[in-house]
Amino acid sequence: MFERPVYIERRQQLMKAVGSGLVLLTGNEDSSMNYKDNIYHFRQDSSFLYFTGIDRPNLFFLLDIDNNTETLFGNDLTIEEMVWTGYVAPLAEPAAACGISDVKPVSALPSLLERARQRSQQVHYLPPYRPETILKLEEWLSTPAVLLQENASVPLIKAIVAQRSIKSDAEIAEIEKGVNTTNRMQLKAMELAAEGITEYAIAGQLQGLAVSEGGQLSFPTILTVNGQYLHNHAGPTVLRNGQMVLCDCGAETAMHYAGDLTRTFPVSGSFTPKQKEVYKIVLAAYEAAVAFMKPGVLFRDVHFEACEQLVKGLQALGLMKGDVKEAVAQGAHALFFQCGLGHMLGMDVHDMENLGEAYVGYTDTLKKSTQFGLKSLRLGRALEPGFVVTVEPGLYFVPELIQAWEAEGKHTSFINYAKAKDYFDFGGIRIEDDYLVTSAGSRLLGEGLIRKPGF
Amino acid sequence: MFERPVYIERRQQLMKAVGSGLVLLTGNEDSSMNYKDNIYHFRQDSSFLYFTGIDRPNLFFLLDIDNNTETLFGNDLTIEEMVWTGYVAPLAEPAAACGISDVKPVSALPSLLERARQRSQQVHYLPPYRPETILKLEEWLSTPAVLLQENASVPLIKAIVAQRSIKSDAEIAEIEKGVNTTNRMQLKAMELAAEGITEYAIAGQLQGLAVSEGGQLSFPTILTVNGQYLHNHAGPTVLRNGQMVLCDCGAETAMHYAGDLTRTFPVSGSFTPKQKEVYKIVLAAYEAAVAFMKPGVLFRDVHFEACEQLVKGLQALGLMKGDVKEAVAQGAHALFFQCGLGHMLGMDVHDMENLGEAYVGYTDTLKKSTQFGLKSLRLGRALEPGFVVTVEPGLYFVPELIQAWEAEGKHTSFINYAKAKDYFDFGGIRIEDDYLVTSAGSRLLGEGLIRKPGF
Repeated sequence: MFERPVYIERRQQLMKAVGSGLVLLTGNEDSSMNYKDNIYHFRQDSSFLYFTGIDRPNLFFLLDIDNNTETLFGNDLTIEEMVWTGYVAPLAEPAAACGISDVKPVSALPSLLERARQRSQQVHYLPPYRPETILKLEEWLSTPAVLLQENASVPLIKAIVAQRSIKSDAEIAEIEKGVNTTNRMQLKAMELAAEGITEYAIAGQLQGLAVSEGGQLSFPTILTVNGQYLHNHAGPTVLRNGQMVLCDCGAETAMHYAGDLTRTFPVSGSFTPKQKEVYKIVLAAYEAAVAFMKPGVLFRDVHFEACEQLVKGLQALGLMKGDVKEAVAQGAHALFFQCGLGHMLGMDVHDMENLGEAYVGYTDTLKKSTQFGLKSLRLGRALEPGFVVTVEPGLYFVPELIQAWEAEGKHTSFINYAKAKDYFDFGGIRIEDDYLVTSAGSRLLGEGLIRKPGF
Repeated sequence: MFERPVYIERRQQLMKAVGSGLVLLTGNEDSSMNYKDNIYHFRQDSSFLYFTGIDRPNLFFLLDIDNNTETLFGNDLTIEEMVWTGYVAPLAEPAAACGISDVKPVSALPSLLERARQRSQQVHYLPPYRPETILKLEEWLSTPAVLLQENASVPLIKAIVAQRSIKSDAEIAEIEKGVNTTNRMQLKAMELAAEGITEYAIAGQLQGLAVSEGGQLSFPTILTVNGQYLHNHAGPTVLRNGQMVLCDCGAETAMHYAGDLTRTFPVSGSFTPKQKEVYKIVLAAYEAAVAFMKPGVLFRDVHFEACEQLVKGLQALGLMKGDVKEAVAQGAHALFFQCGLGHMLGMDVHDMENLGEAYVGYTDTLKKSTQFGLKSLRLGRALEPGFVVTVEPGLYFVPELIQAWEAEGKHTSFINYAKAKDYFDFGGIRIEDDYLVTSAGSRLLGEGLIRKPGF
């Protein structure tokens, strides 16, 4: 946990921004794997953590703005339960550590919500993403599950996005800790990659490293010789010389801040000339994007800058043709770069994704595009000092997609389909780092990781 | 997957046992961590796997016994989705591999269930343990969530328990694979344990090993110098010479069969004389229990046999007194052995726990006790050849519990509370192996693991 005043100040800021009514923050519960009591590792909800710092399951926090009261709802363990779990401090202790003095059992919550409803006091809550939360809210707010998403509080979402978007120095230090562990995971992957080893043999070691340092993975590791598929996880595939490994992984620190890095490197230790050509294009796009980032610039424009670099490079290889800006405007480049340049990073690897991209990555006036490729850009809005973002351009040769586009005759004035066939067995390349937006521009987070492995 | 006839035969046996109506088996979905699309590793429902072998999320299987039809419900991916996931074979392929020829989209399922309801055809389903399954069944079966547990089909539960309790040779081979990986995890823990290392530094490496071999952990690793708490997980605690590490861990194979072993060993490499005394008592209980196991014997009596050995040993140490059998009958030993001797092991580490202990571990005539200690014995019924069970006696010195019992004046004729205080900082010792019940008695599964580490 951070120091107590941090949480008190965050909650005061939140109350001020939301203005009136009740704010209900739902903590997460344990998630069952193959039977109720065999559980995945517990992951607290990030907004709940942001405002309380309490990392335990089955908690609910109610902030009554109108009456200026704060109550934490949760149950203490009995001695018999502690025979199984070990000693667990009464909830009043962590509550006091974040400045909450009122603690009640969960059973006291539904009637308070019911009373608020009778008084027509608004209950602000965030869009639920876990089914157990949906089941609870359905009952407590007398709202059918299908309406819970659309009835979530936009003022609450906007207030929390505004706060969590700007990272404090202490938060940045935590993210750098996560990035540095991720650096070590990447180096471990490069060290282990060799002819004959399986993808999951490497991925397992990376997970072990993250857990050994007291954290977890911030997302399921993508470690694959089929890097053309954007979220292809590690499998039983055996690595062969001549192939490239795309490793996109991240550690989450014990305080739940994420790192997220990608490197693409050759199994044999050196790229083929063809691989090196494409790698250099991705690297040029990465460098152009980083140079372009500064406060006030739309991240969508940083994305476009990277796309233009990719198109120029693809034109030099004979894969694309025509006007560069026009190709990007029409989305032709998305045949080889089907996703966005990056996203917010924080307690969540796609930070605040559960609050909605419309609020996290866009604004009331800047809406997300529906164009293939651009619709996967999670962040479009103007950068501000304190934002932490990933920069992750890539080139991905997906035979099924190329064939589908060719069959539909899409963007024939920009794409040389004949040439594209030479890359059907190429795979994919991505380079990704994490950056803090500063008043001067941006700063690489963490100790830095070799960006040309195998050159 | 096993060979196709295995699944066909299992389903035929199931249809015969249930007799009539529809059987609905719900596959599991992906579970969200901190936002919808950031997911834990997928774990299929074990009964769904047992009857289909298909290891993918969002599937449902409907078996119409009255009309002898079988249908798998699930949706295929679009090309655009496969840009993200990589190639995924159409569902018809794995369906054919387990002998199911009829595949429909999930949207076709609710109306079929509705039609069955109109025809008063019974829909047999298992007790749901995941909230997303509860939400779906609530809607599809028009049954409120609170009634879903009690309306689950007892004939279906009994039929599946009967089948899954008896492991085939191929299943035993898979379990042994899981046990052998678990052996390697245990050896790794013994190798890493040393003054100054944290619990989670070791636990992370064990998890890495399980994942590296293509599987997962079969349950969250218990690795602690506070072994007196039965399910205390690994934390930031630093290991010190003089302490013991209790490591209870298990690998799950790629086909989802579990290993589950416990060893307790000294951080320094050698036990203190006091630790060795207690260790020998637990080992004697372990050996007595193993010698006692054979078909027809109640596992509850194997448990009692182990308990009596523990009491004898505790009497020799001066911790207990009085008639041994009477002490066990009254549950006095449970102050130091608060749980059961073992449980079924299979695809689930507590095999079939979601189907209910009343059916898995007990029978219509042999009910589970409500006595403290004995009520945590998951398996009581008579052993049969083909059962796979754990044997895991232990001694746990929980100061909070000893003080509570002493204050209540419990079992003063059996317990020397004055002496028990000498063990307040002792911790806990458990020894656990996995056994197959054979016609001759039992057989240790796996290659075997040192049972006296540090002697």
